Amino acid sequence: MQIQISKRMSKPDFQGEFVDAMLKAATAPDLISFGGGLPNPISFPVEDIEAAVNKVLQENGVQALQYSSTAGYGPLRSFIAKRYARFGVTLSADDIIITNGSQQALDMLSAVLVDPGDEVLVERPSYLAALQTFHLYDPEVLTVGLTESGADCDELEELLKHHSPKFFYAIPNFQNPTGLTYSKEVRERVATLVASTNMLMVEDNPYGELRFRGEGGESFGRYLGEQCCMLGTFSKTVSPGMRIGWIACPNRALMEKLLGYKQVMDLHTNIFCQMVLAQYLQDNDLDAHMTKIKNLYQHQADVMMDCIARYMPEGVRYTKPEGGMFIWATMPDGLSAVEVQNEAVKRGVLVTAGDPFYEKDRGVATMRLNYSNCTDEKIEQGIQILAQVIRDLLQARQG
Amino acid sequence: MQIQISKRMSKPDFQGEFVDAMLKAATAPDLISFGGGLPNPISFPVEDIEAAVNKVLQENGVQALQYSSTAGYGPLRSFIAKRYARFGVTLSADDIIITNGSQQALDMLSAVLVDPGDEVLVERPSYLAALQTFHLYDPEVLTVGLTESGADCDELEELLKHHSPKFFYAIPNFQNPTGLTYSKEVRERVATLVASTNMLMVEDNPYGELRFRGEGGESFGRYLGEQCCMLGTFSKTVSPGMRIGWIACPNRALMEKLLGYKQVMDLHTNIFCQMVLAQYLQDNDLDAHMTKIKNLYQHQADVMMDCIARYMPEGVRYTKPEGGMFIWATMPDGLSAVEVQNEAVKRGVLVTAGDPFYEKDRGVATMRLNYSNCTDEKIEQGIQILAQVIRDLLQARQG
Repeated sequence: MQIQISKRMSKPDFQGEFVDAMLKAATAPDLISFGGGLPNPISFPVEDIEAAVNKVLQENGVQALQYSSTAGYGPLRSFIAKRYARFGVTLSADDIIITNGSQQALDMLSAVLVDPGDEVLVERPSYLAALQTFHLYDPEVLTVGLTESGADCDELEELLKHHSPKFFYAIPNFQNPTGLTYSKEVRERVATLVASTNMLMVEDNPYGELRFRGEGGESFGRYLGEQCCMLGTFSKTVSPGMRIGWIACPNRALMEKLLGYKQVMDLHTNIFCQMVLAQYLQDNDLDAHMTKIKNLYQHQADVMMDCIARYMPEGVRYTKPEGGMFIWATMPDGLSAVEVQNEAVKRGVLVTAGDPFYEKDRGVATMRLNYSNCTDEKIEQGIQILAQVIRDLLQARQG
Repeated sequence: MQIQISKRMSKPDFQGEFVDAMLKAATAPDLISFGGGLPNPISFPVEDIEAAVNKVLQENGVQALQYSSTAGYGPLRSFIAKRYARFGVTLSADDIIITNGSQQALDMLSAVLVDPGDEVLVERPSYLAALQTFHLYDPEVLTVGLTESGADCDELEELLKHHSPKFFYAIPNFQNPTGLTYSKEVRERVATLVASTNMLMVEDNPYGELRFRGEGGESFGRYLGEQCCMLGTFSKTVSPGMRIGWIACPNRALMEKLLGYKQVMDLHTNIFCQMVLAQYLQDNDLDAHMTKIKNLYQHQADVMMDCIARYMPEGVRYTKPEGGMFIWATMPDGLSAVEVQNEAVKRGVLVTAGDPFYEKDRGVATMRLNYSNCTDEKIEQGIQILAQVIRDLLQARQG
């Protein structure tokens, strides 16, 4: 018996070699890890969740355990819709579909929009797992570079003269992997460019609530209305383990297609966690909870930036995030980040080389550093080791 | 702005008109419903789940709220693997992937196995939502008829002489929609036929634990080993709202592909519910719980069968399930089940006409009756009304 795998799944995994290397590296014991993207466990409101779950089971136990609707739990959808006011967008519960984390939303949008050979547009670099999802649908992946203030608008304008992508997938706030954020001016110019096309703006905003410095963060939905699909998640605010994300979009025709597809995929997202989360959000002050997380991440980011400034050799550049979980570092003299990653893991520090976040570029000099899940001491120790690795590699090259 | 939907999602929904009609009918107030497939809420162990969730949050709260592994929670996978002993199969936790309900497993298998134009084989009739999933992948859907003792083996043997399906999707125990079960002889003959091919046996077994009469139910995994993929779910035993299903298969190469695909789809199934369920299963006797559910469903099935025998006009035939949630009724003189459904809903009774469970047949005389979610009184009242509808339609035809 010889089972024949589909062509779709017989291709090498997109970026599979990098993901395998990362996973393998992560199993080494006693690593100082700047490699992942996990929320700090201190941020999980375990006791408040326990209170919420008891209330749900005592008051609506049967509903929490029974089949439910594909779009998701009404009160949770209402909460999400109302909260968009702070990002400058007016939405109703009908504009929200609850998904199994925002990762599922990436698949839903790809399935509903992308035929093989269609163009899609992403930032350069972009979120690895989004690239992996898009690649399942065989698109032509176009990229637009990032500057310190967001997408390179001149490059975008030029690109749109010659191409017609189905969507532009962007992470405008504290981007994964770079930690960069779009300025208000860039948002407005990108919105104007998008509005002149038939492409959908897909705004992924997992970190938008994690702004610990500066201001801004208006959603593209404010500028683009029905032409913007906003993805969100509770993974970085309450719990990733519950897998509760969402798609927000006032475009009825699109939402109907997304809903039909999700129904065939898995009927609905688990209603038990949706109800527990809605109860938690009703009985607690999410803003107070977020303040705790933001203070923590701000402190960790500051410690890491201080250590980089203090220990790294001259020529190492790095982004200075105003929120989120990541710093993006660029090695001097085009030093390969994969080389740095491989040597660093031998010395007990895990980082993520930039390569898998690029659609095409390889041997890049950039790498992602996560600061949300480390103590001050580990951050200092890890950056010292990393600095020494870079120094050694630079010296080896000169030698 | 004109967003262009993918070709995949621009086709009319497979069976969409029937699903729309069913959903619309279900919104009518005060219906007696034999139309759905919901577990009886009496069967949900609300208090035991509450005890389990408190224990999980107090002992492992952070783990339950953090990101987790794609394959699923170890102790839950072990529980599932061990329980296959009762279906004659020896498995380990490594042979299990936890899914968002078994519906997600249908998509995972389709994605990993089916290229456009590939043949897949299903029972005639088969589970509507499985057909809908398969259709997303543009296969040629072949069908094999069902007899009172399972798949028609002669038809299957003949079909396999001329076709090479990628898989045979079957529900051998208390099938949805027919309630029919494969006899031991049919299982053995089907297994022998499948073993002579390169196709995968996909055994969907959502109702296998719900046997309230007779014996049997050995899994095809016993006969086919690596050539059998077994789908299961806690939706009919503990809770559908948690969306916890699984794929069980000792075929390593296949499982690796399924795991890679699931990771890109949604990273992992919600770990919170997985841990709560595992704790519930550790602290409670699932068999004792199942006895309660089976006694309930046996009683409800008996009431419905008695009422059909007592009230239905001559010539109405029906299956006599030994478990599960459904009876399959055939109207006399080729009366259209859609006509019966439409007239019945006007008189306050919801049934599901057989048509959407068939790949091609339309205007069929069969319909599905669900008994798991009704009181004795409602069952009697509903069957009386339905009998009258059938009588009236038969008379109108003669008149």
